[in-house]
Amino acid sequence: VESGYEFDLEGRVERSADELYNATITDRWGALGKRANGGFLLALCVAALREEVPLPDPLVLSAFFLRPVLAGPAQISTELVRAGRRVATGEAHMSQDGREVVRTVASFTDFAKASGRTLVSGTMPDLPPPRDCVDPLASTPRGPIGIGARVEVRMPTTPGWITGAPTGDTTMTMWMRWRDGRPTDLWSLPVFVDAAVPAVLELGEMASSTVELTAHLRAHPAPGWVACRASTRFLMDGYHEEDFEIWDSTGVLVAQSRQLALLL
Amino acid sequence: VESGYEFDLEGRVERSADELYNATITDRWGALGKRANGGFLLALCVAALREEVPLPDPLVLSAFFLRPVLAGPAQISTELVRAGRRVATGEAHMSQDGREVVRTVASFTDFAKASGRTLVSGTMPDLPPPRDCVDPLASTPRGPIGIGARVEVRMPTTPGWITGAPTGDTTMTMWMRWRDGRPTDLWSLPVFVDAAVPAVLELGEMASSTVELTAHLRAHPAPGWVACRASTRFLMDGYHEEDFEIWDSTGVLVAQSRQLALLL
Repeated sequence: VESGYEFDLEGRVERSADELYNATITDRWGALGKRANGGFLLALCVAALREEVPLPDPLVLSAFFLRPVLAGPAQISTELVRAGRRVATGEAHMSQDGREVVRTVASFTDFAKASGRTLVSGTMPDLPPPRDCVDPLASTPRGPIGIGARVEVRMPTTPGWITGAPTGDTTMTMWMRWRDGRPTDLWSLPVFVDAAVPAVLELGEMASSTVELTAHLRAHPAPGWVACRASTRFLMDGYHEEDFEIWDSTGVLVAQSRQLALLL
Repeated sequence: VESGYEFDLEGRVERSADELYNATITDRWGALGKRANGGFLLALCVAALREEVPLPDPLVLSAFFLRPVLAGPAQISTELVRAGRRVATGEAHMSQDGREVVRTVASFTDFAKASGRTLVSGTMPDLPPPRDCVDPLASTPRGPIGIGARVEVRMPTTPGWITGAPTGDTTMTMWMRWRDGRPTDLWSLPVFVDAAVPAVLELGEMASSTVELTAHLRAHPAPGWVACRASTRFLMDGYHEEDFEIWDSTGVLVAQSRQLALLL
């Protein structure tokens, strides 16, 4: 991919040897202080697996975040686990300074060859048009930084945590797109499922660290805005899940994810 | 563990070498024809990882089902991926006849040392007492077999698929426990999250095959009946998710799972 878009320039990997890739993580993808955003790291693992797995579309991804990842070089080793006719599975290990930081297992499929039944009972978030929504980070003193400067979010109202008055409501809906105009595609979705601030910020919590994130990618999205729904329903002894749905502008569910995280 | 309970006798692994275990899978844990139930296979992987990972409680488990598993011997190799203070992660590969059949990555923690905040907005399924519910498999011509004979399910009404009149409703609530009286514990939960028939049976579908299953275990359950909620909201081109919640009899959410499956 040769484009000037940020994600195409920085979300790519370079093959260095058999089943081995290099990535360069800049501070432009930070989430929590100096730590890189988990969804971006997952996207780098998927970019490496894409080269090794003989089916085109990532279907289900599971990433375990083992250590914090900082800006700097990273290596990704891959393994083709099993190549079936409908589903093919690979595993990627991302390391920094010789220590493993993220482990991802992913199954790919070919959506173009899927031919089964469709019946959807879930519903798309009911959001005002993006132009009638607010960019929550635009009103912060520093403005958008890190992943927030790469991915634009529009919400119906300014969230409580921004103004220092958390609402206690751990469900959120929002629009999302790349700030630099890059079209939304299947490869964007691993980033988008983890690009919003955690819903627990509305409980007055400051930060949360992901142990594991599973994402299901279900269809190629239309290129523009996507509508998202985030929710946390079970905060127990500091551990919590966060669910995320992404719908494209034509009303198709394109991704669903759940993570298990720990309050910091 | 030396008990006469089926799961303790058959859900165990025997260490054969460093990071290598043997299991014997009988036809008593079948789900779909002759294939072994995925949750039981996950439980075997967890039993092996339990021996290698230096924290006591499985927290988040992700299993990829690579090939059908039949009754017979299986080998499980394990790897300790990272042992942190609050979270420790391992990986298990189950093989039959030298071919890998299930790959599981799992993080463990110590629930006794968890001390963070608790705030739960999800609600327990509203079910009549188990004695006022029906055992759906009791009315089938063959009676309960395979996993259905190991795990007892009680539902408010006889499900439509049993009587040949699927309702089209892909949400189900039910009670669950071990039929042989074994107390429900943390180790039961990987089996229970996959022990119900798929919700898509209420769409008139006959069977579904799991690609990946992620389970979050959240607390040690009380020993008896657990209340469960299953739902499928997104069947798209034959691919579907299935969500599952397990609540113990004291009203605590003890497990949450999601799988990505393919209609057969």
